[in-house]
Amino acid sequence: MASTKSAENALTPRLTHIDEDGRAFMVDVSEKSETRRTAVASGILYMGDDAFKAAISGGGKKGNVITTAEIAGIMAAKKTSDLIPMCHPLAISKVSVKVEPLEEGGGLGVRAEVVTTGKTGVEMEALTAASVACLTLYDMLKAIDKSMVLAEIKLMEKSGGVSGDYFR
Amino acid sequence: MASTKSAENALTPRLTHIDEDGRAFMVDVSEKSETRRTAVASGILYMGDDAFKAAISGGGKKGNVITTAEIAGIMAAKKTSDLIPMCHPLAISKVSVKVEPLEEGGGLGVRAEVVTTGKTGVEMEALTAASVACLTLYDMLKAIDKSMVLAEIKLMEKSGGVSGDYFR
Amino acid sequence: MASTKSAENALTPRLTHIDEDGRAFMVDVSEKSETRRTAVASGILYMGDDAFKAAISGGGKKGNVITTAEIAGIMAAKKTSDLIPMCHPLAISKVSVKVEPLEEGGGLGVRAEVVTTGKTGVEMEALTAASVACLTLYDMLKAIDKSMVLAEIKLMEKSGGVSGDYFR
Amino acid sequence: MASTKSAENALTPRLTHIDEDGRAFMVDVSEKSETRRTAVASGILYMGDDAFKAAISGGGKKGNVITTAEIAGIMAAKKTSDLIPMCHPLAISKVSVKVEPLEEGGGLGVRAEVVTTGKTGVEMEALTAASVACLTLYDMLKAIDKSMVLAEIKLMEKSGGVSGDYFR
Amino acid sequence: MASTKSAENALTPRLTHIDEDGRAFMVDVSEKSETRRTAVASGILYMGDDAFKAAISGGGKKGNVITTAEIAGIMAAKKTSDLIPMCHPLAISKVSVKVEPLEEGGGLGVRAEVVTTGKTGVEMEALTAASVACLTLYDMLKAIDKSMVLAEIKLMEKSGGVSGDYFR
Amino acid sequence: MASTKSAENALTPRLTHIDEDGRAFMVDVSEKSETRRTAVASGILYMGDDAFKAAISGGGKKGNVITTAEIAGIMAAKKTSDLIPMCHPLAISKVSVKVEPLEEGGGLGVRAEVVTTGKTGVEMEALTAASVACLTLYDMLKAIDKSMVLAEIKLMEKSGGVSGDYFR
Repeated sequence: MASTKSAENALTPRLTHIDEDGRAFMVDVSEKSETRRTAVASGILYMGDDAFKAAISGGGKKGNVITTAEIAGIMAAKKTSDLIPMCHPLAISKVSVKVEPLEEGGGLGVRAEVVTTGKTGVEMEALTAASVACLTLYDMLKAIDKSMVLAEIKLMEKSGGVSGDYFR
Repeated sequence: MASTKSAENALTPRLTHIDEDGRAFMVDVSEKSETRRTAVASGILYMGDDAFKAAISGGGKKGNVITTAEIAGIMAAKKTSDLIPMCHPLAISKVSVKVEPLEEGGGLGVRAEVVTTGKTGVEMEALTAASVACLTLYDMLKAIDKSMVLAEIKLMEKSGGVSGDYFR
Repeated sequence: MASTKSAENALTPRLTHIDEDGRAFMVDVSEKSETRRTAVASGILYMGDDAFKAAISGGGKKGNVITTAEIAGIMAAKKTSDLIPMCHPLAISKVSVKVEPLEEGGGLGVRAEVVTTGKTGVEMEALTAASVACLTLYDMLKAIDKSMVLAEIKLMEKSGGVSGDYFR
Repeated sequence: MASTKSAENALTPRLTHIDEDGRAFMVDVSEKSETRRTAVASGILYMGDDAFKAAISGGGKKGNVITTAEIAGIMAAKKTSDLIPMCHPLAISKVSVKVEPLEEGGGLGVRAEVVTTGKTGVEMEALTAASVACLTLYDMLKAIDKSMVLAEIKLMEKSGGVSGDYFR
Repeated sequence: MASTKSAENALTPRLTHIDEDGRAFMVDVSEKSETRRTAVASGILYMGDDAFKAAISGGGKKGNVITTAEIAGIMAAKKTSDLIPMCHPLAISKVSVKVEPLEEGGGLGVRAEVVTTGKTGVEMEALTAASVACLTLYDMLKAIDKSMVLAEIKLMEKSGGVSGDYFR
Repeated sequence: MASTKSAENALTPRLTHIDEDGRAFMVDVSEKSETRRTAVASGILYMGDDAFKAAISGGGKKGNVITTAEIAGIMAAKKTSDLIPMCHPLAISKVSVKVEPLEEGGGLGVRAEVVTTGKTGVEMEALTAASVACLTLYDMLKAIDKSMVLAEIKLMEKSGGVSGDYFR
């Protein structure tokens, strides 16, 4: 059994959430220092013309489709450690979520920014905020178009922490 | 003001979650009948070779990267109405989430199936399960690859309810 | 001890959540019939001129102070059984929360309406929605005025169920 | 559009949770210092004689109406950032909630005290605890009296932080 | 691989939450009928003399150690599907939790009763309520005695549903 | 009344969560220093041969019974302050939960380790993780054996904090 383990370890040297027995766990960050950490994630909900017009119209005048999604994204960032099993609970310092129509039409872009002063990064919080904002837009618009697609949900940048900064 | 409202209504005739004043609300489903409703959603997490090998290796032998994501997806389906502001709470009857490597490599595919007997559909539950499973995979693999992308999160099929069945 | 209990029972004959030993419990509603039940609750956040102007200004144009409170109220209705120890979890069918300036100025009025088809009423859901909407308004405006007061949070009407309808 | 924005900003110069585009967000507190912060909030549930007698009776002997409300208030303080969209999650250091009959009768008074060592104040935690304690009292007593009214929920004092201390 | 699977299936014929690929999922109960279902679970927290005296003293007079545990158990029953990954969310109709000193001293006994009208049983809800009541007693008394032990948490009886009644 | 209080205080001198009026509250830890704190708790689910074989079989090959319980335990540790009324919310730094068959057969042993850097200990987090892991095992195996018993859930060791280290 030991040899199998070694072979596997050679393939998966950096899976921080998996221990030597292949068991998932929440890694110990108690020795890491508390620093300011930021992350920005983005995502897109692609949709047809009818849904886009409805979203824009609601967005330009009353804003409730878009505002609902922005608030849902902010609240979701605070639930990240409740959703993602190995995520550490964090005292989040800032969340901002912006939803804007794509310049070329046909979709809505989401940008989520999260800041903390803590021992771990906030990539998952930013990605969760962007995902839930997209899901909320889908929910608000699905009576018009069920074929909308969430796409390009990704980390745009992060700063702070030992692993260094990241820019896409 | 009334004319503005009319103009807007002409543009957004079917935004079920927005009332005549442009205010978001949770629509009344009390008069809808309780029927069996199903929904299937899918999603993909695209990744580089190193992350893919680590995920596959963990998937083939111990399964903990993939199993953690599947369980996170199942639990997230039950939190949908807590995450999506206008979603109705539902007595979910079944959730199953499957994560499998893409045949062509370079990513993991997620398929989430949700069933209820209730007054509203479970599209959002299936989409939420698929999204959170992808986010969990990202979390488990991000030490290897921060540039992974969640994509093609979409409704594959739904059945039950007045609005009829849907197949992509 | 029995005599003390009797004396107490004479004073508290209808405390449905307290058993004969004085112990709180969640009452059995399994034999009650599932009927459509509605409740409307209202509340007011009283405030000074500066906060009122800021709230109105935000309300007339972009609506984000008021919209955030309305969404928070809707989401809070779904958390009622998580907040109030003896409340039954319910499949809520509708929630709508409206925030509007008092005609006479000096405050914002909240009106929350909740509907279910279930075995218990939704008074607590409506009151919780109204309270959390007021608390959210307080949070959004407290940088201007910390002396604002939540008041007159009360049940306006309920319908459905054995105990009959209620109108204030 | 720029001029409209300026006009609005002149009216709402201090709405900390609204950005320059009128969008709600959770403000960045990462640069604020961690200090000990306290807040006290109070509230009243007004009721008729029958409910008051039942509450007092339960309060004097077994205490379960009042104890249930106190515990619900304490637990609600910990859920504040889950209920109020723009509230920061906080490591609360202390919560105490006291429910006592009004000296003049006709109601129950609630006093909630919250302490943290953190980057933001705990006004919302104290107000939420007081509100949910009142809501729980309503729930426990509503079989006797549906016309009870939550009132005078307000901040009594706060200390700590840059904005200075506050006493009503 | 098929043969391995068969061998395994022969060993685990009734693991309802594991599919044919060894994957955990929430089983489909949509075809099960809604019936009244009850479950009773019990548990014990064993403790030394000092903790027992403190608990009894608190229990006889003011009741707050024991009352806090009873309320925590009731609220935990409502969170069962949030805690146990494959549990279905349920509209619970009744929860009652009683904590009483063991006749022979040296511990506190917990009895939790849960009722629903639904498609699945409430064994897990009763067991969760009993466990969390014991954990809360431990928390309230741990300043006196850290060596207390939770034990004999078990299902005492269940009724309703196809699998039939059960009495220990 | 004062004399009664004194007598009671003599019996319950160290009930930290009960104030001088017998009222439960969350104690003030704001003056305690932030130190690294660890706790280990364990528990056992005793079961008959059939359930044990099914669990072992699932554990040796696919691991989903055991993996589901381990993940549920980790996630439950993060919900501790939501479940136990007087527990402080904490920024948990590490959670690991291991489920292993008893050497002598007839049951599964759970070991939960929790670490934080904070103002209070993590005994309750470790005990909650162990309890919920046992409850999840029960849920996964209950179709085979309803007579399984959770037992010996206890604190094995703790370190950090003023009250000193503890080893069973």
